[in-house]
Amino acid sequence: MKEAIELTAEEAFQQQLQSLQIEVNNALDRVLPAENREPQRLHEAMRYAVMAGGKRVRPILAYATGMALDIPVTHLHGIACALELIHTYSLIHDDLPAMDNDDLRRGRPTCHKAYDEATAILAGDALQALAFEVLISESAQTSSDKQLVQMVSTLTLAAGHAGMAGGQAIDLAAVNRQLSLDELQHMHRLKTGALIEASVLLPALSSGKTSEAGREQLKQFAWHIGLAFQIQDDILDVTGDTETLGKTQGADIALNKPTYPSLLGLDGARQKLKDTHKAAIEALQEFDHKADLLRQIADYIVARTY
Amino acid sequence: MKEAIELTAEEAFQQQLQSLQIEVNNALDRVLPAENREPQRLHEAMRYAVMAGGKRVRPILAYATGMALDIPVTHLHGIACALELIHTYSLIHDDLPAMDNDDLRRGRPTCHKAYDEATAILAGDALQALAFEVLISESAQTSSDKQLVQMVSTLTLAAGHAGMAGGQAIDLAAVNRQLSLDELQHMHRLKTGALIEASVLLPALSSGKTSEAGREQLKQFAWHIGLAFQIQDDILDVTGDTETLGKTQGADIALNKPTYPSLLGLDGARQKLKDTHKAAIEALQEFDHKADLLRQIADYIVARTY
Repeated sequence: MKEAIELTAEEAFQQQLQSLQIEVNNALDRVLPAENREPQRLHEAMRYAVMAGGKRVRPILAYATGMALDIPVTHLHGIACALELIHTYSLIHDDLPAMDNDDLRRGRPTCHKAYDEATAILAGDALQALAFEVLISESAQTSSDKQLVQMVSTLTLAAGHAGMAGGQAIDLAAVNRQLSLDELQHMHRLKTGALIEASVLLPALSSGKTSEAGREQLKQFAWHIGLAFQIQDDILDVTGDTETLGKTQGADIALNKPTYPSLLGLDGARQKLKDTHKAAIEALQEFDHKADLLRQIADYIVARTY
Repeated sequence: MKEAIELTAEEAFQQQLQSLQIEVNNALDRVLPAENREPQRLHEAMRYAVMAGGKRVRPILAYATGMALDIPVTHLHGIACALELIHTYSLIHDDLPAMDNDDLRRGRPTCHKAYDEATAILAGDALQALAFEVLISESAQTSSDKQLVQMVSTLTLAAGHAGMAGGQAIDLAAVNRQLSLDELQHMHRLKTGALIEASVLLPALSSGKTSEAGREQLKQFAWHIGLAFQIQDDILDVTGDTETLGKTQGADIALNKPTYPSLLGLDGARQKLKDTHKAAIEALQEFDHKADLLRQIADYIVARTY
């Protein structure tokens, strides 16, 4: 007789994350151009950067939002892929010598190290276009044209000068400059917050079933977990080690970049992390048990060590 | 008594081009983020690159296609701006030191020279996102959601790995390599042809009034004028050298970039230009006099001396 396998809540959560990672990885593999297709070097570089692993935080958030809203995982592959493609393009460009000049990403040489700068710039450019292409082509079966238009608009705003790209510009301007807490938060709200917000908004827009109030609660949740993610990132930059992080420990401090620990002290940053986590959970109080994966993700962001 | 001012056909054509340039410049000025809005350096760089002048070939093609299809100029600003924003972002990135390493563009320092490399990369990234945003927001009054979705899809394909970005990757790989005529044409078809094709397709898609056959004819026209533009560019390179340096053809072979004259000889390239122009005009034979501006543009491309 076989023994029943009992999973702890933590193990069940990790399994769920892994299964969603597999979902998005399969979808990404399907939507990325084949490596043996010309121009091969560009297509290889695109795949190299996207398929390097990574936590797939944004796709998982999108799928988890889908669960809270009764939207099947299979309807959300376009959104999940688009988010990860935008995120990856931003990592490729941020890592360039003219930007953060990073040699390591996800434990491997960065795209411009593995290929060359020109290819890395183009791979990022092509991934941005592919994100919008895939958002439409993969969602067209299950979303109306009106919903598709809203989704594309939302993603353009999250990615562009008033979102992620704008946040990166503020971040660059902040090197060797003292930012206030408000300025630091504004920078993160654009640089990472906008795309995390899009990760919960796009699924809500894709079905048309979510009320404006529901979307606002999801936005609040996203804002707080995005903030928590950043605070924890800054804390780990101080307390973690390079091997566990898969990127250079202390990189922000070395660049003289403002961080939550540098502004609030380590204890102050930890307290803010706790408050932010609480606010994220409270934003979901109108949602039932189907939002539990979203809640677990909020817990995980605070508890993670890499 | 005032003398009546009679314009030659050439002067009337030049006036029409100028008035359409003013149309798109006004629209671009309206859709670009204000320079005094944070992050200022990013927004300044975006405006610097876009508002530097330039022939506005793609917007003018879009407006001229609109004339052939009875679509008012005011309905096409979103398309015109989106095309020029994508084109400008590609110029900014192509000029970077890691790519073509150009210091001058449109008679002024390139974006990374006037600002810095990081800002130029981000300005390009943000302009790409803005292109899709503006395509939707500026066209939403006059195009249906279905049409908007088709337009965004078409532009993503033209801009991405299977279009402009892919063509640039092939171009980079072609330096110091002998390309066949087919390979050279394939490179240009992607690098510049795809966006020129989009310049006539997007207006056709925006109204929903154009038949599939009509769109196919416009595509044929676009392909041939794009090709003609490139052949004339290559010819001007050689004949310019001949006049100023007193050298005969073959000077461009030293640059190790494949060109039409290097593959076909100068006479062969001129014959191909003539044939291509003829094919462009023939593609429009089902269109009436309202397509005359498109025809004049084809003539102009062949006759231009700079």
